Amino acid sequence: MDRDRLRALLARVRSGEVEVEAALEQLAHLPFVEAGYARVDTHRALRQGLPEVVYGPGKSAEQIAEVVRVQRDAGLPVLVTRVGDDTAEQVRARVPGGHYDPLGRLLWYGPEEVPIVGKGLVLVVSAGTSDLPVAAEAAGVARRYGNRVELLTDVGVAGLHRLLASSALLREARVLIVVAGMEGALPSVVGGLVDKPVIAVPTSVGYGASFGGLAALLGMLTSCASNVCVVNIDNGFGAAHVATLINRL
Amino acid sequence: MDRDRLRALLARVRSGEVEVEAALEQLAHLPFVEAGYARVDTHRALRQGLPEVVYGPGKSAEQIAEVVRVQRDAGLPVLVTRVGDDTAEQVRARVPGGHYDPLGRLLWYGPEEVPIVGKGLVLVVSAGTSDLPVAAEAAGVARRYGNRVELLTDVGVAGLHRLLASSALLREARVLIVVAGMEGALPSVVGGLVDKPVIAVPTSVGYGASFGGLAALLGMLTSCASNVCVVNIDNGFGAAHVATLINRL
Amino acid sequence: MDRDRLRALLARVRSGEVEVEAALEQLAHLPFVEAGYARVDTHRALRQGLPEVVYGPGKSAEQIAEVVRVQRDAGLPVLVTRVGDDTAEQVRARVPGGHYDPLGRLLWYGPEEVPIVGKGLVLVVSAGTSDLPVAAEAAGVARRYGNRVELLTDVGVAGLHRLLASSALLREARVLIVVAGMEGALPSVVGGLVDKPVIAVPTSVGYGASFGGLAALLGMLTSCASNVCVVNIDNGFGAAHVATLINRL
Amino acid sequence: MDRDRLRALLARVRSGEVEVEAALEQLAHLPFVEAGYARVDTHRALRQGLPEVVYGPGKSAEQIAEVVRVQRDAGLPVLVTRVGDDTAEQVRARVPGGHYDPLGRLLWYGPEEVPIVGKGLVLVVSAGTSDLPVAAEAAGVARRYGNRVELLTDVGVAGLHRLLASSALLREARVLIVVAGMEGALPSVVGGLVDKPVIAVPTSVGYGASFGGLAALLGMLTSCASNVCVVNIDNGFGAAHVATLINRL
Amino acid sequence: MDRDRLRALLARVRSGEVEVEAALEQLAHLPFVEAGYARVDTHRALRQGLPEVVYGPGKSAEQIAEVVRVQRDAGLPVLVTRVGDDTAEQVRARVPGGHYDPLGRLLWYGPEEVPIVGKGLVLVVSAGTSDLPVAAEAAGVARRYGNRVELLTDVGVAGLHRLLASSALLREARVLIVVAGMEGALPSVVGGLVDKPVIAVPTSVGYGASFGGLAALLGMLTSCASNVCVVNIDNGFGAAHVATLINRL
Amino acid sequence: MDRDRLRALLARVRSGEVEVEAALEQLAHLPFVEAGYARVDTHRALRQGLPEVVYGPGKSAEQIAEVVRVQRDAGLPVLVTRVGDDTAEQVRARVPGGHYDPLGRLLWYGPEEVPIVGKGLVLVVSAGTSDLPVAAEAAGVARRYGNRVELLTDVGVAGLHRLLASSALLREARVLIVVAGMEGALPSVVGGLVDKPVIAVPTSVGYGASFGGLAALLGMLTSCASNVCVVNIDNGFGAAHVATLINRL
Amino acid sequence: MDRDRLRALLARVRSGEVEVEAALEQLAHLPFVEAGYARVDTHRALRQGLPEVVYGPGKSAEQIAEVVRVQRDAGLPVLVTRVGDDTAEQVRARVPGGHYDPLGRLLWYGPEEVPIVGKGLVLVVSAGTSDLPVAAEAAGVARRYGNRVELLTDVGVAGLHRLLASSALLREARVLIVVAGMEGALPSVVGGLVDKPVIAVPTSVGYGASFGGLAALLGMLTSCASNVCVVNIDNGFGAAHVATLINRL
Amino acid sequence: MDRDRLRALLARVRSGEVEVEAALEQLAHLPFVEAGYARVDTHRALRQGLPEVVYGPGKSAEQIAEVVRVQRDAGLPVLVTRVGDDTAEQVRARVPGGHYDPLGRLLWYGPEEVPIVGKGLVLVVSAGTSDLPVAAEAAGVARRYGNRVELLTDVGVAGLHRLLASSALLREARVLIVVAGMEGALPSVVGGLVDKPVIAVPTSVGYGASFGGLAALLGMLTSCASNVCVVNIDNGFGAAHVATLINRL
Repeated sequence: MDRDRLRALLARVRSGEVEVEAALEQLAHLPFVEAGYARVDTHRALRQGLPEVVYGPGKSAEQIAEVVRVQRDAGLPVLVTRVGDDTAEQVRARVPGGHYDPLGRLLWYGPEEVPIVGKGLVLVVSAGTSDLPVAAEAAGVARRYGNRVELLTDVGVAGLHRLLASSALLREARVLIVVAGMEGALPSVVGGLVDKPVIAVPTSVGYGASFGGLAALLGMLTSCASNVCVVNIDNGFGAAHVATLINRL
Repeated sequence: MDRDRLRALLARVRSGEVEVEAALEQLAHLPFVEAGYARVDTHRALRQGLPEVVYGPGKSAEQIAEVVRVQRDAGLPVLVTRVGDDTAEQVRARVPGGHYDPLGRLLWYGPEEVPIVGKGLVLVVSAGTSDLPVAAEAAGVARRYGNRVELLTDVGVAGLHRLLASSALLREARVLIVVAGMEGALPSVVGGLVDKPVIAVPTSVGYGASFGGLAALLGMLTSCASNVCVVNIDNGFGAAHVATLINRL
Repeated sequence: MDRDRLRALLARVRSGEVEVEAALEQLAHLPFVEAGYARVDTHRALRQGLPEVVYGPGKSAEQIAEVVRVQRDAGLPVLVTRVGDDTAEQVRARVPGGHYDPLGRLLWYGPEEVPIVGKGLVLVVSAGTSDLPVAAEAAGVARRYGNRVELLTDVGVAGLHRLLASSALLREARVLIVVAGMEGALPSVVGGLVDKPVIAVPTSVGYGASFGGLAALLGMLTSCASNVCVVNIDNGFGAAHVATLINRL
Repeated sequence: MDRDRLRALLARVRSGEVEVEAALEQLAHLPFVEAGYARVDTHRALRQGLPEVVYGPGKSAEQIAEVVRVQRDAGLPVLVTRVGDDTAEQVRARVPGGHYDPLGRLLWYGPEEVPIVGKGLVLVVSAGTSDLPVAAEAAGVARRYGNRVELLTDVGVAGLHRLLASSALLREARVLIVVAGMEGALPSVVGGLVDKPVIAVPTSVGYGASFGGLAALLGMLTSCASNVCVVNIDNGFGAAHVATLINRL
Repeated sequence: MDRDRLRALLARVRSGEVEVEAALEQLAHLPFVEAGYARVDTHRALRQGLPEVVYGPGKSAEQIAEVVRVQRDAGLPVLVTRVGDDTAEQVRARVPGGHYDPLGRLLWYGPEEVPIVGKGLVLVVSAGTSDLPVAAEAAGVARRYGNRVELLTDVGVAGLHRLLASSALLREARVLIVVAGMEGALPSVVGGLVDKPVIAVPTSVGYGASFGGLAALLGMLTSCASNVCVVNIDNGFGAAHVATLINRL
Repeated sequence: MDRDRLRALLARVRSGEVEVEAALEQLAHLPFVEAGYARVDTHRALRQGLPEVVYGPGKSAEQIAEVVRVQRDAGLPVLVTRVGDDTAEQVRARVPGGHYDPLGRLLWYGPEEVPIVGKGLVLVVSAGTSDLPVAAEAAGVARRYGNRVELLTDVGVAGLHRLLASSALLREARVLIVVAGMEGALPSVVGGLVDKPVIAVPTSVGYGASFGGLAALLGMLTSCASNVCVVNIDNGFGAAHVATLINRL
Repeated sequence: MDRDRLRALLARVRSGEVEVEAALEQLAHLPFVEAGYARVDTHRALRQGLPEVVYGPGKSAEQIAEVVRVQRDAGLPVLVTRVGDDTAEQVRARVPGGHYDPLGRLLWYGPEEVPIVGKGLVLVVSAGTSDLPVAAEAAGVARRYGNRVELLTDVGVAGLHRLLASSALLREARVLIVVAGMEGALPSVVGGLVDKPVIAVPTSVGYGASFGGLAALLGMLTSCASNVCVVNIDNGFGAAHVATLINRL
Repeated sequence: MDRDRLRALLARVRSGEVEVEAALEQLAHLPFVEAGYARVDTHRALRQGLPEVVYGPGKSAEQIAEVVRVQRDAGLPVLVTRVGDDTAEQVRARVPGGHYDPLGRLLWYGPEEVPIVGKGLVLVVSAGTSDLPVAAEAAGVARRYGNRVELLTDVGVAGLHRLLASSALLREARVLIVVAGMEGALPSVVGGLVDKPVIAVPTSVGYGASFGGLAALLGMLTSCASNVCVVNIDNGFGAAHVATLINRL
């Protein structure tokens, strides 16, 4: 449409109907965003082959199903995050064909096997079993985003041998996502063992002075390992997104 | 320049040198910001008759003097905020003609009497003598911004009679700026006495549980008077800016 | 009654029954609040044409219905805020004639079309769909308060083009209410695009380091745009109240 | 029993069975707390005519009933605080004769009319209707503690006239308890109107930046009125206890 | 002056110049605060025999000296709080006759021996030597306010015997001020030993997790002794003020 | 397996198949963790005779039962912490033979009487009845860990006599665990009465300014008794673990 | 004296001057603290061979020197903590014979070699060079308290090999003090490598989100290693005190 | 040395002096860290061509000079961060040849032109002039680490046009570092304009509710742009380190 308006204007310039100065004036006042729309487009994600992502909380099964239907009708994949068992069930009843990962709370509509376009391994490391849902979210998203992903779990800093035993795997990774609650020390230790970027995800797991993930968050931000950066508490999705961008470089 | 480029392109469309579709393509890829620049201009403040404002902290007397000189050479007024006695002295030694208000820590280069363009009275109300510097900043900025300003001081909530004795003045105001430290209750009380917008400024004055203005800030945000909105701690300038915009409506 | 007492006293002064000095003494000790009552009246809101507002939380359907009945019997409109579906249903069962807005959680008893008395447009801008309830509260209250209101939604700072595409609407507004959760950056960006007062409303939407709206609140208070002031977290009502007062100036 | 042991020892000293020095030694090693028990006794409250108080939360109806029964069997009054409707009902089903105040959540077993032993009036002042439960707790406890009590409600700082209209009552009070949520400004204002001790009670009522009563608490602690002291958030009972002690002086 | 206006009006009523109804109208619109001024007077403190108090911080020696001079000329005592050695020296050089207490940082102009008007003993209890300045402020102010005062120091909760050895003194007190930094446990322990009101003063003494007095403040607010109320961190003056009001009852 | 690899390499060195330098190289690159595994073993706890501990929250009855079964089949004891009544019931239905302590929320599979291996008495001291669950957890864990344990309850700092009456018991203890909510003053007082290590456990019991145990935590960290160290809020298990290690020294 | 009073009373019982019941009464009211004094004595520390400790901050060189002199005259050692270079110099000028440790800021008056009475090794572990002052305080105090002490420094969690290389030393320790700033992860890692009690000391070293040691403190409190307990930020002295008590068991 | 020990052992295996099984045993108990040292080496940074980095604060000029000398003697570059003008001057007086960047507070000993090994552009974006020191640190470190670096400054979110005008540069970057204080909104806006990883650095610049960078930190963590991750407040160095690792992938 925007292009249509522009085309019409230019045609009239060409035909002499509109003077150069008058056209200039019109162009100067043309809402620049319309002109810019094609470039700063909302479909950036799709052009990169990343699926549309729907953040589940606060949305009803019907609302989610609607978004899913639109995408499906357009032949596009869609990933719903933080969606519980019941809601997932209801969405799938409405729109068949979804794959649900109850641990990572991810509902996926798209090809079962997403082609690998990431250049290396994204390794998701998790301290305790209670951090597993966030780690599973990160791993699940990273896979749907086209990365080769490994999940290394139950490697706490109070039992280093399991972590050290996996040093080959750690060194193989191109990007690492490290998930930890409580004191959040794992990214520092992992960061010291590798020379690749480490994306730390604090989790809200814990009690007392963990203050809903604050202890882990502060611990990760003040990490003594310089190759660590941090995303929001429980934000497994964000970590996977950043890791994907890095892994495509 | 942007207009020159556009003009040239349009001229070539007109002359038939460039096809409509080709021009369309060029326009679509023209950096939209260049086109948009004239509209989202930086000179908004000046067009409104508001002086350029320089935030003083972290700048040397020389740096401030340089900005002042540029403005002065362009025949434009300039207001420096949060500038201490010594720095003000040094700037004035470098660029003569400045007026300095040591209480509000404001250094002004411009006409001594700024024409009044605000439609009504901006009333600055302050609880204690220790809140006076912030109140003076708000009042000084509001004056330089072209408002009629009154300053009502030392009207704490623990001595209501002084405040109540000024009710005529309170009701005369078109916009009110209320400055208070410690428990920050004054805006609620003033807000209950008037039916005009009240801009509350918490100050960092106080000790102990005032926590650097936090007590006052929270008190103002949770005010039981619905006509109160809040700016940052000690932000007399911001309050004056908002009040000016309101007073010009 | 107060007037009666005064009238009697004055009559006795006139008749010579009471000496001037004695009357003076009596007047000096007359409870000043009784005299003052007529001026500092509780009906200020009504005289301005603003409806009575009832804050819903913690009140039973029966308690709300009672207030509504009293107002309705007096021929006065009343607006109930933060009232859920069930309670609204029950109130309407008790007092017919209410209009319920489930998104903004507003229950309204009054004329369907409130006459416009505000001088310009109040524009409510909202970042994400999850901020919509607070935005809807602000918009709904502003409408019931007699303002022309537009609601511009889903214009996040991470996708500027949608926001920039609405720049005409932004510039048309006389006052803006900007609602945002998470990092609360939208008011700064909007504040930079307009030269009108911007009332920022942080929302408690979000998780992790949003800390129930604290991140958004701090972000708005420290905004680098000088035309931004802030109300309490989720306080869509307060924002609409301040905006209304400004819009009537 | 302790006295028995002592009596036996002294008898043996008297009879010459035990030497003075040996008795001295025994006394020096006698568990001093046993000797001290009578003085630092647990029955201090009872001797002052204060009823036993049971803090309800976390206790089952059966547990409360048991304490009540023991007290009742001993002919002593007992007051249960923070007890909800259901639990109160169940306790009263088990132990008849209790008086329940649903607003203040107080369950009382004792004389309907407690004799007044406090020397003056304890005035409980409350800002909003939502602060009423805490105010009612304070008032109810103060009454059961033998004070003459008045409750002055709905006198917010944003509507001073109602408060000022009650200045006679305010000046009559010997001790004041002021209850307020949100910004907690009421104690400062009341404190400025009287020259008696004011006990401020912040409440957890509110939302957003009230942070569960923190805003009110900080506001009260930083009050600019010097006759204000503060108890814990929602601690109506503690305020009544302190007020009672003061009122008996 | 207000009285003059009133007198004139009444005289004109008497003379028939002004009708009763007209006078009534005028009176109704007379600024009530002027009428009320005599009653809500600022001189409340003086009538109670309490000296004027000047809060020192942020005031220059010259500013303090000026206030002192005015009071001295009126034959009235004045107490300056939180004034350091140097400033006190400079004030005394300007206005002779002051008594300075360097520990409590109090500068006093008035009779050396203030007559005792408080009814009983105000006991100031202090945990550590580092809390002494605040305790000395409380004790010094209480003395200047006309109370009999004792100071019991160095009685920490980790060495109970010193405290218990003073139980006679504790029981003698009519009001107690308990000053403590770090964990702030002393008021709870003292509160359990007496049945009089205890005013707790947290101090900012300490390091690490004392967070500038926050730990002590929270500890005192959550005290398990019901006869404890709290004033602001380091607010020895406020504690003495409240204690004085109680001790005069 | 690791040993097998090493053995094979050494055999080939011996036979001359592999040169010393080549073997050296291989050894240098042998994953050190495999070699180190035997030393940093996971079975440390078992070798010390400490039972396996399962943290209950977030685990289903089935998941817990599975761990229990594995341990039971291996003839090893297992202790489940923080397990509620219902879950415990379900686990016991699946795996018979468990002992459940509802107060301490501990489920134990192992010998009824654990042999005492700790050298002295572990004394668990608790302030109020509401702290009892955490104290019971600490006591229960300490018993299952092979300590002689006593539990001293209801000894608050506001009623010192009960605590002082137990001084013999306090002095008998080799290690003390002190559990307290609200102001958390008990560890300081107990710490002053004994010269043994005191492990303080703050609890989340309380309301208002206790902020979920924060007040108690800060109070304990800033304790004026030097023999106090602190574990996480509500962490009765951790306190028992540290106490056990100390008691075995 | 107390004993004298008791002796006189008993003598009068024996002689028949005082009746048993009368003596009983007198004893019951004898201030129990006097009787108890000998048991809850202040000299506990000295009897254990621990030196007197003076906390330096807030004390003048003269005040410190005075305490030192008293102890020296009594032939007793004394340790001054947190004393800077200048003050230490001045104290030593006043009282010769002191040993000063500038790193740990400890001033010691006593035998150069304190006899070892602790049963095993106290190992002080420190993460970074900036944590060294606190570690040195802990080590210095532990030595003066009669422990064999080793100091293992510069073993951060981001470079595990240095820590692992010291595993023999770690396993030799009977008690460990682990000092760390920033994220405070070291105690968790060390706690996982040993089965002895670990006393964690957060330090205020760091910037940004370390918030003066808060990040380290929270990290240590939420440690996933169960053998870790925590003392206040920067409290090297307290850690050494607890470690000494444990090491003497 | 380790290799020497291994070599000797292997030689003795080869010669038959030591049996395979005995050698196996020795190897199994060989401190694994010694064997591992070569792999988990401290020189990882150097092998990657990254210079040694010295964190300046808390170190004297002499201490810094010493480290610099050691590196220089080994022919290795060294970079000192957060070093002020005076200290830098003194270090350079001791060790000639250093380059000092006063804005970024970086002192560099190494080749003036570091060869570019990073694959793309590292773009450092900064909001205000007061954030410039942190931006300059990030840019300076990134350059010394072998990246092509551009610095885009003064592009605040309240003046979007400057930012939008640089969209070509933004899109050219392979990794972006975005530095902002106050509300920290810039990374969200930049993150929405590019599809590359964005490393956000909050700065402690600001006043009032910026709380030393906390507002910016929370804003960045809760960013609505999914490609943003965060490092510690003011940690320009850390951001450059992570960016370098990403840019080498």
